[in-house]
Amino acid sequence: MVQSAECRVQSAECRRHQTQHPKTMASENTNPELRKDAVWNRWVVFSPGRAKRPYEFKSTSPTDPNPVQQCPFCIGHEHECAPEIFRVPPTNDPDWKIRVIQNLYPALSRTLPEPQHAPSGSVLSGFGFHDVVIETPVHPVHLFHLSPPEIGNVFLAYIQRIQQLTSHDSIQYVQVFKNHGASAGASMSHSHSQMMALPIVPPSVSTRLASMKDHFDQTGKCFICEILCEDLLIDSSTNFFSLVPFAAAYPFEIWIVPRFHSAHFHELDAEKAVELGGLLKLMLRKMNLQLNNPPFNYMIHTSPLHGNESELPYSHWFIQIVPQLIGFAGFELGTGCYINPVFPEDAAKVLREVKVPESG
Amino acid sequence: MVQSAECRVQSAECRRHQTQHPKTMASENTNPELRKDAVWNRWVVFSPGRAKRPYEFKSTSPTDPNPVQQCPFCIGHEHECAPEIFRVPPTNDPDWKIRVIQNLYPALSRTLPEPQHAPSGSVLSGFGFHDVVIETPVHPVHLFHLSPPEIGNVFLAYIQRIQQLTSHDSIQYVQVFKNHGASAGASMSHSHSQMMALPIVPPSVSTRLASMKDHFDQTGKCFICEILCEDLLIDSSTNFFSLVPFAAAYPFEIWIVPRFHSAHFHELDAEKAVELGGLLKLMLRKMNLQLNNPPFNYMIHTSPLHGNESELPYSHWFIQIVPQLIGFAGFELGTGCYINPVFPEDAAKVLREVKVPESG
Repeated sequence: MVQSAECRVQSAECRRHQTQHPKTMASENTNPELRKDAVWNRWVVFSPGRAKRPYEFKSTSPTDPNPVQQCPFCIGHEHECAPEIFRVPPTNDPDWKIRVIQNLYPALSRTLPEPQHAPSGSVLSGFGFHDVVIETPVHPVHLFHLSPPEIGNVFLAYIQRIQQLTSHDSIQYVQVFKNHGASAGASMSHSHSQMMALPIVPPSVSTRLASMKDHFDQTGKCFICEILCEDLLIDSSTNFFSLVPFAAAYPFEIWIVPRFHSAHFHELDAEKAVELGGLLKLMLRKMNLQLNNPPFNYMIHTSPLHGNESELPYSHWFIQIVPQLIGFAGFELGTGCYINPVFPEDAAKVLREVKVPESG
Repeated sequence: MVQSAECRVQSAECRRHQTQHPKTMASENTNPELRKDAVWNRWVVFSPGRAKRPYEFKSTSPTDPNPVQQCPFCIGHEHECAPEIFRVPPTNDPDWKIRVIQNLYPALSRTLPEPQHAPSGSVLSGFGFHDVVIETPVHPVHLFHLSPPEIGNVFLAYIQRIQQLTSHDSIQYVQVFKNHGASAGASMSHSHSQMMALPIVPPSVSTRLASMKDHFDQTGKCFICEILCEDLLIDSSTNFFSLVPFAAAYPFEIWIVPRFHSAHFHELDAEKAVELGGLLKLMLRKMNLQLNNPPFNYMIHTSPLHGNESELPYSHWFIQIVPQLIGFAGFELGTGCYINPVFPEDAAKVLREVKVPESG
């Protein structure tokens, strides 16, 4: 992995930040500070005095990485699941590696009539798709146990399903997400992710696109293409890097960002999917080692499927990983601001320095 | 309490909603539906098939309503707390009823230099105030055990503190909130609420003001003045009513709304504070009885303190109560959409019909 030598571009935000907080001071700064997240246009309150020192931050409700049991997602239990959409490899071979199936309790319904018009008004039929991607046939295996090519195949399964969903004109956006651990929202412990195909562009996506367009209109540049900043960098590979964002809303939040500009996650090719799998695996292993196997979510932030926005010079997909270390409460619900007890440059330094054993 | 006879005004949203869902059908509707929340401009996915029937919805992690212990917030332990700001009654009498104190672990710092200019850029000093309102001197007593005049005094303590904070030109907004129960974010079980005085207008407040202004510009009317809708109504009194909002993001979310237009919570007079205390007490008791003492948050949504927006014809304060019954996960984090398994008209019917014993 190449680290800071890769950091050739520094955004204005990065330079301003370094002026205000010389790197050597970062971990000693205990005064609170507010930072505005430029992507979702929201404020985050950094309050380092409210928590442990960054190196001492651990999950108090770790997930069991190796529960030994069987469940409907296990190989041989396919008949207990909602219908299969496809499997990998794409044969009827019972020895499957990945299955994409319908969610047994879908939040949206694929059987309602598909809307023929763009959404208007404040009520909309709940037409949509809510699918599950079973990432491995074996219960005790988790995503971070898989090899980079195997994780790459999970990404390629997401992509294959997104491409299928694109044939529905009414589907505006596909949210890919993973809940790992009960307190991160996972109702099944068998390793899986979910895909929700929505008849609307969700509010966070609209906000992100609007602020990225503003930045592009003002500077002629894609904000995410320029986001890399030396003291926020964690790790990098040829085509991707990982960092803690400048105004991370959650402690030890991690983004994995392609170096190349690309509006849609589903444009990713097979070779880069393997490379991305390697960096995701490294980040999840570092998180587990440093933060005591925390429950976590990851979300793929991409661009809407249709319309004039299909080839956006200002929209750049990325993966956001959020370890669930602190809860939401009335302040966050009321204001839409977040309180983060760990400065991003401190979290990045901690994660950069985690030593990951070769095996695993 | 007067109920549906009070419902004279029906908003366009209410009429549209009733056209689509005749009241007798509400609890039989199991198809998912998307509704746009007009206040925060966000979509909510209603997925009744994913959960129990509305009457069977219970908290699986109820709070203990009567923990018997002592803590720094208890009478006689004042010396274990951060400094007091004021007490009620306002004497040095050791027999206090309410204390407003500094938070021992504040998210913002009152000792940093106060900013002299309006915020600009993406980094801001963490100047601000983070206070705690101890609502009772006695540990096992919770807010909903207090009498309406006693709860009214808690509101008057909020108001007195907001009026003090208004003297700081740099303080743009005061968020009053209560976390009840550990899983709703309360680190102390002794009944208390919190006040965060911020040097910014928070993003949720900006969004709310912008959408309320849009509605006013289009219709000449305040949206909240017209929000009352018969099948969403829970209870009402002379000057206030409670309802489940049309696009509630959370199951059994409750709003308490003044009938009279008022931009700022801190304009409330002492007589109406007692009446509001009675309706809040009723809502919390109904929630406890019906939903098995759930952890909850409430937030007071008001208007910014300064600037041209001090007397807003389109901004109308209200209290939002959120029982913590389901968690957030990757979908909500990724999209800013919410999934609610209970239709608001069903939740309102359940809460309307809860029988509350006279005593208590």
